[in-house]
Amino acid sequence: MTEKRQIHDNPAPALILVTPQLGENIGAAARAAKNFGLSELRLVSPRGGWPHPRHTRKAMDMASGAGEIVEAAQAYHVTAEAVADLHVTYAATARPRYMIKPVLTPREAAARMAAECAGGKRVGILFGPERTGLVNEDVQRADVIVTIPTNPDYSSLNVAQSLVVLCYEWFQAWHEPASQGIPYGKAIPATKEEVEGLLNHLVGELDQHDYFKAADKKPGIVQNIANLFIRAGLTDQEVRTLRGIIRALVWRGEY
Amino acid sequence: MTEKRQIHDNPAPALILVTPQLGENIGAAARAAKNFGLSELRLVSPRGGWPHPRHTRKAMDMASGAGEIVEAAQAYHVTAEAVADLHVTYAATARPRYMIKPVLTPREAAARMAAECAGGKRVGILFGPERTGLVNEDVQRADVIVTIPTNPDYSSLNVAQSLVVLCYEWFQAWHEPASQGIPYGKAIPATKEEVEGLLNHLVGELDQHDYFKAADKKPGIVQNIANLFIRAGLTDQEVRTLRGIIRALVWRGEY
Repeated sequence: MTEKRQIHDNPAPALILVTPQLGENIGAAARAAKNFGLSELRLVSPRGGWPHPRHTRKAMDMASGAGEIVEAAQAYHVTAEAVADLHVTYAATARPRYMIKPVLTPREAAARMAAECAGGKRVGILFGPERTGLVNEDVQRADVIVTIPTNPDYSSLNVAQSLVVLCYEWFQAWHEPASQGIPYGKAIPATKEEVEGLLNHLVGELDQHDYFKAADKKPGIVQNIANLFIRAGLTDQEVRTLRGIIRALVWRGEY
Repeated sequence: MTEKRQIHDNPAPALILVTPQLGENIGAAARAAKNFGLSELRLVSPRGGWPHPRHTRKAMDMASGAGEIVEAAQAYHVTAEAVADLHVTYAATARPRYMIKPVLTPREAAARMAAECAGGKRVGILFGPERTGLVNEDVQRADVIVTIPTNPDYSSLNVAQSLVVLCYEWFQAWHEPASQGIPYGKAIPATKEEVEGLLNHLVGELDQHDYFKAADKKPGIVQNIANLFIRAGLTDQEVRTLRGIIRALVWRGEY
C-alpha cells in the first residue's frame, strides 16, 4: 500500500499503454518512468489480460528495479475507462491525423504538462500498440497530439523509445535542471596574474632559446599562446604544473 | 558504396559504441540513429568480433529498416583508433567522474554539437557497455561529458535508451538555428591523433628530463596534462606551435 500511496501522491502524468502486445514493453515503460520521476502505469486491454502468467513475468524481468511500478499497474477494458479520472490527455502518435487539435513537440507538450500538473490537474499520456499505433478514436478523445520530430524518411520509433523521449522531456520540464558548467570541484581557477606569470615565464625561456626568429612575428605568437591558455580555463595547480614542465624541459643538469 | 558515401557526407555526429555486448543494442542504435538523421556507427571491440555470425544477425533483425547503418558500421580495436579522425568527442555517462571537464545536459550538448558540425568539425559520441559504462580513460579523453538528468534515486537508463535521448536532442538542435560557439574562422581544429601526438612528444621529453620523479604519479600527471590540452580545444596550428615550443625549450645548441 505504501507504494500505491506514493504513486497517487506523485503529480506526474500517468502513462497509458493502449492494447500493449509485449510484456517487455510494459517493463521498459516502468523503467523509463522511474528514471524520469513518473510512477503510474495504466494498461488498456493488454494482450492476454493482466496480470498474465508470461507477460507479467517478462515485464518484471525488463523492469529491473522498477518492479513496483509494474506491480501497481492497473488494467482497464477500454480507453475511456482508463482516462476517466484525468483532466487532460495527450496522445503520442507519429502519423498526421488531420484533426483540428494542437500538435505539439514533446518539449512543448512537457512544458504544458508541467504547468498543468503544477496546477493540480491530473494528466495522462496515451501510447498505442507497437505496430499500429493509437486508433483514431483514442486520438480524437485526447486534448493534445504529441509528435516526436524525426527524419521524414524514416520514422519508426517503437513505443518504448517514444516513451523514453516523452518521460525525458517531462523530467526536464518539471525540474528545468541547470547544467553544472565545468566542475572544478575543490580546484581553484588560476587568477589572471598567475596565467600572466606562466606566459611570461614561457616567453622568457623561448627568448633564451632563440624561438622568435623574426621579431615582428613575436607579438602575434605570444597572443596566440595567451589565447590558448585562457581558453583552457587553467586551475592554479595546472599553472604550477606547466611551470614545472617548462623548468624540466629547459634543465641541462647545471645545478 | 552509395550508402557509405552518404554516411560520410552526413555532418551528424558518429555514434561510438565501446565494447557493446549485445547485437540487439547495435541494431537499436542503428534504428534510433536513422530516426533522428544520424548515420555513422562505430564499434570499439564488440564482443565476439565484428561481423559476428549471431550478433550481426540480431543487430540486423532489430534494426528493421536501418540495416544499411549496421552494414556500414566499422569496428575498431581501441577507442583511440575509433576517434582518431574526429575533432570533438562527447562521453555519455551517468556517473559523476570528478574530472575538470564540462558536464552538459543532452540539450546543451546537442546545441554545442550542432554548432560544431555546422562549422565543419567531425564529432563523435561515446557510449559504454550496458552494465559498466565507459571506463575512466575513455571519459578522460573526451572533450565533454554528457549526463542525462534523471531521478536521483533511480538512474538505470540502458545504452539504447540513452542513445535515443541523445539522438533525439541532436535532431532538435540540428533543425534549430544555433549560436556559433568558438569562432575558429579559417583555423582548423586539431584531430584527436594530432593532440595525442603532441601529448606523446611532451611526455617523451619529460621522461628524458627526469620530470616524473615518482613512477606511480606519472599516469595522473599525464592525465591532467591531456585534460588541459583537450579543454583548450587546440587548432592544428596550435599543436604545431606547441611542438615547436617543446623543441625550442629542449634544444641545447648541439646541431
